[in-house]
Amino acid sequence: MDQRVSLITLGVADLGRSKAFYESLGWRGQEVEETVFFQAGGLGLVLWGRDELARDCGLDDAAGTGFGGIVLAHNMNAPQDVDALLAAAREAGGTVTKPAATTSYGGYAGCFADPDGHLWEIAHNPGFPLADDGSLTIPDFGPP
Amino acid sequence: MDQRVSLITLGVADLGRSKAFYESLGWRGQEVEETVFFQAGGLGLVLWGRDELARDCGLDDAAGTGFGGIVLAHNMNAPQDVDALLAAAREAGGTVTKPAATTSYGGYAGCFADPDGHLWEIAHNPGFPLADDGSLTIPDFGPP
Repeated sequence: MDQRVSLITLGVADLGRSKAFYESLGWRGQEVEETVFFQAGGLGLVLWGRDELARDCGLDDAAGTGFGGIVLAHNMNAPQDVDALLAAAREAGGTVTKPAATTSYGGYAGCFADPDGHLWEIAHNPGFPLADDGSLTIPDFGPP
Repeated sequence: MDQRVSLITLGVADLGRSKAFYESLGWRGQEVEETVFFQAGGLGLVLWGRDELARDCGLDDAAGTGFGGIVLAHNMNAPQDVDALLAAAREAGGTVTKPAATTSYGGYAGCFADPDGHLWEIAHNPGFPLADDGSLTIPDFGPP
């Protein structure tokens, strides 16, 4: 696992309110499918519904699973790398909260929780290019 | 506020266990004063005691304040920028959970929560250099 974070996703209760907050502080991003993507240096900061984010990691926010509301993503170039890293995380004492599966966006992703429950999504996403140094660029989604 | 994240700090219950987990996945960092710093691209991923992390943001983890266990830091070059950004966050609808104050490491920092309670520490830390592009480099703390 290279030492990098591709996305930080903040689970939010009201996307419009959260987007307005960050825009008030000067952030500019793209909203697509009820998700806001901000480019933040070499990674993306993402706003997404908290319930969907928990579900996407195989958790139920309402069930008191200790979901902290934030998920870090580590994107990888090849789908098979996703499986290998999830297996390594399990072997190291993490918990695979969602086995890898194909995603709605044509990628392949799964999630693990570290020993304190901090969540990582391990993803292959062909639509989000990774540079040689591992930095991620949010693509231009076109006009809203 | 520039669109960047300087540090991601994960609150942990057992620093040794958490450090061993990330090291098992190939991460290498530096441990200093009960804190582990990993360079992750242009930012630092940090492991620190969950209770201390909550307290550092003006929260009491045990009191059910909704502390999610993760704090994002945004480092700035000048102390007065810290005050200005905390004021802007409050004006935008955030909550200043800890007013800016001088820190043990000779810096100046305060914290705000966004509308969903996601925490940002806004910090001036002269010991952690920021490049022109805003990326942060963890300094070499020397032999342990």
